[in-house]
Amino acid sequence: MPLANDLTTFFDNNQSRARDELFDLLRIPSVSARSEHNADTARAAEWVANSLRAIGLTVAVHGTKGHPIVVGEWRQAPPGAQTVLVYGHYDVQPAEPLELWGSPPFEPTVRDRKIFARGSVDDKGQLFLHVKALEAHLATRGKLPVNIIVLAEGEEEVGSEHLADFIQAHAKELACDAVVISDSAMFAPGLPSILSSLRGLAYFQIDVRGPETDLHSGSYGGAVMNPAMALARILATMHDADGGGHITIEGFYDDVRDWGDVARRQMKQLPFDEKAFRAETGSPALFGEKGYTTLERLWMRPTCEVNGLLSGYTGEGAKTVLPAVAMAKVSCRLVPDQRPEKIEQLMRAHVERVCPPGVEATVRPLHGGNPWRADLGGPLFDAARRALATAFDREPVITGEGGSIPVVGDFQRILNAPVLLVGFGLPGENAHAPNEWLSEENFYKGMRAMAALWEELGK
Amino acid sequence: MPLANDLTTFFDNNQSRARDELFDLLRIPSVSARSEHNADTARAAEWVANSLRAIGLTVAVHGTKGHPIVVGEWRQAPPGAQTVLVYGHYDVQPAEPLELWGSPPFEPTVRDRKIFARGSVDDKGQLFLHVKALEAHLATRGKLPVNIIVLAEGEEEVGSEHLADFIQAHAKELACDAVVISDSAMFAPGLPSILSSLRGLAYFQIDVRGPETDLHSGSYGGAVMNPAMALARILATMHDADGGGHITIEGFYDDVRDWGDVARRQMKQLPFDEKAFRAETGSPALFGEKGYTTLERLWMRPTCEVNGLLSGYTGEGAKTVLPAVAMAKVSCRLVPDQRPEKIEQLMRAHVERVCPPGVEATVRPLHGGNPWRADLGGPLFDAARRALATAFDREPVITGEGGSIPVVGDFQRILNAPVLLVGFGLPGENAHAPNEWLSEENFYKGMRAMAALWEELGK
Repeated sequence: MPLANDLTTFFDNNQSRARDELFDLLRIPSVSARSEHNADTARAAEWVANSLRAIGLTVAVHGTKGHPIVVGEWRQAPPGAQTVLVYGHYDVQPAEPLELWGSPPFEPTVRDRKIFARGSVDDKGQLFLHVKALEAHLATRGKLPVNIIVLAEGEEEVGSEHLADFIQAHAKELACDAVVISDSAMFAPGLPSILSSLRGLAYFQIDVRGPETDLHSGSYGGAVMNPAMALARILATMHDADGGGHITIEGFYDDVRDWGDVARRQMKQLPFDEKAFRAETGSPALFGEKGYTTLERLWMRPTCEVNGLLSGYTGEGAKTVLPAVAMAKVSCRLVPDQRPEKIEQLMRAHVERVCPPGVEATVRPLHGGNPWRADLGGPLFDAARRALATAFDREPVITGEGGSIPVVGDFQRILNAPVLLVGFGLPGENAHAPNEWLSEENFYKGMRAMAALWEELGK
Repeated sequence: MPLANDLTTFFDNNQSRARDELFDLLRIPSVSARSEHNADTARAAEWVANSLRAIGLTVAVHGTKGHPIVVGEWRQAPPGAQTVLVYGHYDVQPAEPLELWGSPPFEPTVRDRKIFARGSVDDKGQLFLHVKALEAHLATRGKLPVNIIVLAEGEEEVGSEHLADFIQAHAKELACDAVVISDSAMFAPGLPSILSSLRGLAYFQIDVRGPETDLHSGSYGGAVMNPAMALARILATMHDADGGGHITIEGFYDDVRDWGDVARRQMKQLPFDEKAFRAETGSPALFGEKGYTTLERLWMRPTCEVNGLLSGYTGEGAKTVLPAVAMAKVSCRLVPDQRPEKIEQLMRAHVERVCPPGVEATVRPLHGGNPWRADLGGPLFDAARRALATAFDREPVITGEGGSIPVVGDFQRILNAPVLLVGFGLPGENAHAPNEWLSEENFYKGMRAMAALWEELGK
């Protein structure tokens, strides 16, 4: 079903103004990681607050120990209407190295229908298209079909340090029926996408201790277990012996929930280009767990990776040291319903079992997070499907993500509301890299999709 | 057979003078590694030269690009007499950390019949007891039973950088029938020892390369081979799967020469204290190749050790990086007749064979040296056995050494003469550590043993 005429006309008439306004926001170098940009980051918060006020929301800018959190509200929907929270962030990654940019990072420039600027896709453009979708309703009809809360933070690029506490402290005011986040990418140009899963994390440090101090490898080598060799042996037991990617930690897969044939079939239909993906990694060849496609390995299957190794002498040339200690950073990406606490227990038991004689190994958890998977059967997702089809003239696809977005779990847990991840970036968008861009077409279609979403949710 | 009366009397009468003279040498802080001590190191060279002149040798001090090489000669032995080269070094290790010394490192102090000073055992005391043994012959009889060359260098503690070239350049003048070196330790107090073997070395760097740059372990983990995990798998294949110390690199043991039952039986009779050795290492338990004793593992058997590991993130806390590269320093201690060049070939073939798909591994040799084993059947060693028995009233034992002394191979190769390693240090002597000491008794008995050796070789 096409978008209502009044909304369509509004978008058609105000497209270039929306773009010009976004450019104003993109010109503010709100780099949250750099204290010399603190004034810019505060200015970006005020800019977002003003843009919400201008379309008719009631706005408060909340100070934190870090950067401010902007909350705008409109609560005049008919009785029984849903309340939806839209989350986004106005801070950006540092722009360095500047010399690799084709145009200045804070001077938005359109080339080839791409808006090049730091923060264009991550996340200013995707946050602002929500503002413009709300404006279309409020400007044409003086009202919205749902109650709306817009929450924009300024610390997403530095770990959202104060967000969970803020949500917790304001849980009553932020209570809602759904959370909508646009901070991800579509699977391919023209292919609207709903992100349905995130992997969790269980991150450990494994320390192996042998001799009390580094020993001379000539005088002692052969008579004591070498901790670095012991560590290598321990790590090598974590995957099956034939070199496949299957993890052999006992009980590791016990809680992995099957995705079902429908999800796997849908995944197989996605236009995934293995060659392009391999080229993107620069690896000599792709490799992973037997019996699974690359996308399944990335989205559906847990992993066990070495993130770091350190032992003994690592400088230039040769030093004949038998190291006293060896260290590995090891992390597992988790899928529903795995839990980091249980994986920690299994990891400890495994390392204890395989640790060679003559050394001692300890496992220390450093970081953890639960995996997440959307319940795609609910009315929120049906509405999102229809809204995306309206704006893009094509049924959306369901995608996954191998990494984690911790705020998703925070919103869902604290507010007890389903989270819809619907993003308008594109592969190759250079988020966090030089020459970040947002598709101009997606910026405009994203507004229309979100305007359609409010209509669908108001039905 | 006891030492001749005239020599015994001379030693008895001149013992305290010899000690006082040694103390003068020990007071010179000839730390070859520190340029601020260059004048001290030169002064030590002159001191040694003068001590050789004083007993009747013709001496030259040869400048090098580093520290000088002192050569003293006495060539008036009867026709047909052997020529023996005595090697030692007058430079010492740095004394730091000074606060751990019980008495100042360059102020020799006797406690409990131990001469405490930097360089007391390594190697000034052992070099000077040779000077005193020669003096006994020359002072009492006006002659020596053999022609003598004394070569003292000042760069042993910094890798003997200019020695091999010097020997090569002066091969004619240094031509001899035997080389005698006192720069090692006796197996136990009262137990004179001939060091009969040194292990060689083949040292490599193994680099594993996967993706072109570090990747996000969430976005890519599971779909590409992790180079650090691949490196662990490669290293783990180098020993047998049951965790024993046996090396599984194909052909690795092909050139290992059997030591024979006699040598193994002698080794088993040495008063070796496993508990004390374990305590010395500080390892939770000793460990090594099945079927061999600790001493056999240290002296008779080759090893494969990891000397260093580096990959990805090694700082505090968690970083979810999938590293682009992983590096290991790996070295093999070799035993006769293994050769580093062949071990390099075997290592390359092994790594190529076991390298997992999706990564590339390279093996780069960094350092190598041949193992060495004395031919204990020759007349030099028979003379040494008798001389040691004369001075210590006990048959010497044959010992081995797990490390390498590169100059041994240089002398043997360039001068084509057998090398006798007969040392008078003791376990726990703290060479290279604070509170280095030399047994006063060994200093005196060492002189007598060497005086007896010249008698034996002159027969």
